[in-house]
Amino acid sequence: MTTPWNQRYAQRMERMGSSAIRELLKLTQRPNLISFAGGLPAPELFPVQQFDAATQKVLAEHGAAALQYSTTEGYLPLREFIVEQLHKQGVHATADNVLITSGSQQALDIVGKILLNPGDKVLTEQPTYLGALQAWRSYQADFVSVPADDDGLCVDDLPEALRVAPKFMYVLPNFQNPGGFTLSGERRKKLVETADQYGCPIIEDDPYQALRFEGDDLPSLLTMDAQRLNGAYGRYEQGNVIYLSTFSKTLAPGLRLAWMVAPADVIRRCVMAKQGIDLHTSSINQMVAYEVIQNGFLEEHVNLIRRVYRERRDVMLDAMTRFFPSDVTWTRPKGGLFLWARLPKGMDAADILAKAIENNVAFVPGTAFFPQGGGLNTMRLNFSNAQPEQIEIGIRRIGEVLHQHITSKEQLATSD
Amino acid sequence: MTTPWNQRYAQRMERMGSSAIRELLKLTQRPNLISFAGGLPAPELFPVQQFDAATQKVLAEHGAAALQYSTTEGYLPLREFIVEQLHKQGVHATADNVLITSGSQQALDIVGKILLNPGDKVLTEQPTYLGALQAWRSYQADFVSVPADDDGLCVDDLPEALRVAPKFMYVLPNFQNPGGFTLSGERRKKLVETADQYGCPIIEDDPYQALRFEGDDLPSLLTMDAQRLNGAYGRYEQGNVIYLSTFSKTLAPGLRLAWMVAPADVIRRCVMAKQGIDLHTSSINQMVAYEVIQNGFLEEHVNLIRRVYRERRDVMLDAMTRFFPSDVTWTRPKGGLFLWARLPKGMDAADILAKAIENNVAFVPGTAFFPQGGGLNTMRLNFSNAQPEQIEIGIRRIGEVLHQHITSKEQLATSD
Repeated sequence: MTTPWNQRYAQRMERMGSSAIRELLKLTQRPNLISFAGGLPAPELFPVQQFDAATQKVLAEHGAAALQYSTTEGYLPLREFIVEQLHKQGVHATADNVLITSGSQQALDIVGKILLNPGDKVLTEQPTYLGALQAWRSYQADFVSVPADDDGLCVDDLPEALRVAPKFMYVLPNFQNPGGFTLSGERRKKLVETADQYGCPIIEDDPYQALRFEGDDLPSLLTMDAQRLNGAYGRYEQGNVIYLSTFSKTLAPGLRLAWMVAPADVIRRCVMAKQGIDLHTSSINQMVAYEVIQNGFLEEHVNLIRRVYRERRDVMLDAMTRFFPSDVTWTRPKGGLFLWARLPKGMDAADILAKAIENNVAFVPGTAFFPQGGGLNTMRLNFSNAQPEQIEIGIRRIGEVLHQHITSKEQLATSD
Repeated sequence: MTTPWNQRYAQRMERMGSSAIRELLKLTQRPNLISFAGGLPAPELFPVQQFDAATQKVLAEHGAAALQYSTTEGYLPLREFIVEQLHKQGVHATADNVLITSGSQQALDIVGKILLNPGDKVLTEQPTYLGALQAWRSYQADFVSVPADDDGLCVDDLPEALRVAPKFMYVLPNFQNPGGFTLSGERRKKLVETADQYGCPIIEDDPYQALRFEGDDLPSLLTMDAQRLNGAYGRYEQGNVIYLSTFSKTLAPGLRLAWMVAPADVIRRCVMAKQGIDLHTSSINQMVAYEVIQNGFLEEHVNLIRRVYRERRDVMLDAMTRFFPSDVTWTRPKGGLFLWARLPKGMDAADILAKAIENNVAFVPGTAFFPQGGGLNTMRLNFSNAQPEQIEIGIRRIGEVLHQHITSKEQLATSD
């Protein structure tokens, strides 16, 4: 009387589909296909030589420790490096406020594990990062979303949305994935105040902060929340913000190396959760990354990435201006990896994608990033992973598909 | 009106404590303390040179791929290596039956995520692996346990325990952590039949299989279940077993590299879950491990580990015979990393541990491994991580504490 597996799965599996992004990434395996679909860094910029030298050094000097089990909290020198960076940003944290995670995706999972009961509401921007939706759907969360425009989350809409008492708000303040927009300074201030006023914490997901191409850095929500507290508490222990960042976009995603910053009690809970999740993040990867970023290498390397991505963004924007129909609009991101286009109302980006793939070019239809549906006429374009000449060719191909689509629709309308 | 964090945590946090093992591992940091508490491999055996050479090769030949995002399923050549091993064991699997995980702890978490609803029952051996309890407590599972003796899980007690309809049974068949015992061939057969008869799957956790010091290998539950099916199905698609193993004990735990074998539909669900958990396991670690194990190195290295651990087990057993009171009994494991001692009834191993730590030696009191309480008079001793001379000194110290404890109890009884 074998019970079939499909009668054994947990209820939460009903909410979890395979990630649209991951499935689309499979398309990028096709030879000759130009993909703007993934969120991959430019592999030709990976500091391979530095990793080689750093690994040799770590294995020679600390081989046994690098290959042994290590603490759940993470490699202390690496946590202290992050603490130093935080000090420069005005956050007086200690290593007790920092947890190393196996990529930011794990941080999202941990946040779900420590905070979400089934049926809890999570407030997100619209559109928002798909990986967060996927992580929290597995905790049977429901989503309530607030629109975002070129200045990021529309904070004036928050009080209305907060009436359903979400467990937390999820915000990507810089060069948002997928939208490419950046939360303005004024809105950041308002958001931090609102979090405090309503007792609703903020999960600040900030993978792209270092990849700014133009304009001045804006303080993180973490920094603003810490400033709010400094007078009263001296240390970041009563804060409302859980801050996430990563080495995936500044060094290499293949390491699976990221970090969380939060009040010490929150980190303590996260450590408990992480013990049951994977014991700890790879010892050797933490030690090698720490070695690589020494002596100012990280800043230097980030400058290189910025120059290259900025050029690619410019090539993409220029090609869109030349090849896209005039009634398509798009964001002009000041950093990061993505830009976001809006097709004329009534057009479905999934139809465009099907045709685009036939023409060997791919992107992500935006609807996947709308937790409550909608966004059928939107698309996300990644500009970090393709060479400038490929970007130009790919955008021209998408432009042709868009023009054909619009022309055939007009013909259809005429023949009616 | 800031809400305090302790009013925000999810209900599941109430069931999750900090891992006793992880907390005890902190004791091993004390200088001069001889620790039998952890489950650490012998670091002096880590193949540091091989990792150095393999990393250089991988970075030189596939640097970009090693540092880039990769597929959730895992590095295909590594999965195919595992498939080959399975074929040798009579399991006709394909790469679709294999998922690479970030350590076996992650596999336990994934199993919980795809199978457990709050309140579901999990059947375990008693004692059982603490990390599994920790992983599944976070899914609000309840535990029902069946005693184990020197031949492993007492399978005749299963029908009674299965009346509560557990979601699955969790078994460590070889050199069990913490008990050191091995499930007999006859009981394996019965267990696989029982799983099929009751429609209750088995999670087979098998990290130590390669570390046998004596006697013949026994077929895994996976192999037996596959044999049951081969006639009818040809492939391992209707099986009842999810099999877990790891490179942590044969290569190095610092990599966080393990694998699951299961029917393809189960693996597909696990992949969906893992996407939301950490996207994928470190690309570079998978590629380097694959490089290290080439040309028979894994077998050769495992033979070295076996010789060293066997000697350490023998030294520990010999010292226990000489230094422990005659009314203490213990298992004689045929492999693995642990042995298990029973103190006279009424003695509490936690009292002994407190005194032992004063004398600079540590172990784990066994009660932590009893999901439903009990086992106060038991203790787990690890023999893989200390040098033979340290093992002798440490066991002598514990022996002294035990003798003192028994003597003072007798005096107390006399003075009554």
